Amino acid sequence: MEIELYSHEYFMNEALKQAKIAFEEGEIPVGAVIVSKNRVIAKAYNQTEKLNDVTAHAEMLAITSAANYMGAKYLNECRLYVTLEPCVMCGGALFWSQVGEIHYGASDPKRGYLQSNPSILHPKTKVFSGSLALESEQLLLEFFKKLRK
Amino acid sequence: MEIELYSHEYFMNEALKQAKIAFEEGEIPVGAVIVSKNRVIAKAYNQTEKLNDVTAHAEMLAITSAANYMGAKYLNECRLYVTLEPCVMCGGALFWSQVGEIHYGASDPKRGYLQSNPSILHPKTKVFSGSLALESEQLLLEFFKKLRK
Repeated sequence: MEIELYSHEYFMNEALKQAKIAFEEGEIPVGAVIVSKNRVIAKAYNQTEKLNDVTAHAEMLAITSAANYMGAKYLNECRLYVTLEPCVMCGGALFWSQVGEIHYGASDPKRGYLQSNPSILHPKTKVFSGSLALESEQLLLEFFKKLRK
Repeated sequence: MEIELYSHEYFMNEALKQAKIAFEEGEIPVGAVIVSKNRVIAKAYNQTEKLNDVTAHAEMLAITSAANYMGAKYLNECRLYVTLEPCVMCGGALFWSQVGEIHYGASDPKRGYLQSNPSILHPKTKVFSGSLALESEQLLLEFFKKLRK
């Protein structure tokens, strides 16, 4: 049996695909996937407009979905890939989930919370950033440019 | 027509009733209500165990429920009553909701996030604390005492 090991960029690209769905649906384009044992177990994109709910960030929906799939609240063995640096709310949720790794693409100097406050996370959670950052940022810039028109 | 104006303690007591339901269901007993125009429009209690979801804090469920009732994402005209000081995640969600007032009962020195970081909230959000704090804390202490047995 041959096991194909996907790269971090592969999974970030899956998150970016989710962000593109958000873009098409008129949502701020942020996407996330959660990976367990090198397999995507949850995909989500920001749905704050459609669900009329400020809590419906991609990461929040992905956490709920992954826990549902795992049948367990804690995601210690999982990796989150998200196209944009998580905000305070999502950082807090990721703390509670005890997620193993967080990989985010673009930095969010305004609302991102991990870079300046890594201590809000679970001490065992590892954080990586920058994968497909340019593509993720470009999509956001395009969205806000379109919105202003 | 006579309009009865309920006190903050009245609404905090409604939140405490929700916390008691959580207690009965084996959940960490925290309850919340959201009030608009002096009327309860959303009630919720912590359901992290039942829903197997770390994001299912009383405040989060109440925000989603209130936005659904209002048909609007933002809760500027609303007041949240919650029996325990909100955590980072809930503080972040309350920021996004732009909630008008937050009233919390007991302080949470370990996981509470508002007391030491009020700046994470929306600048227009007012915070009040201490209403029925003793009763709220007592319920939590009783829960953890029972759990340890």
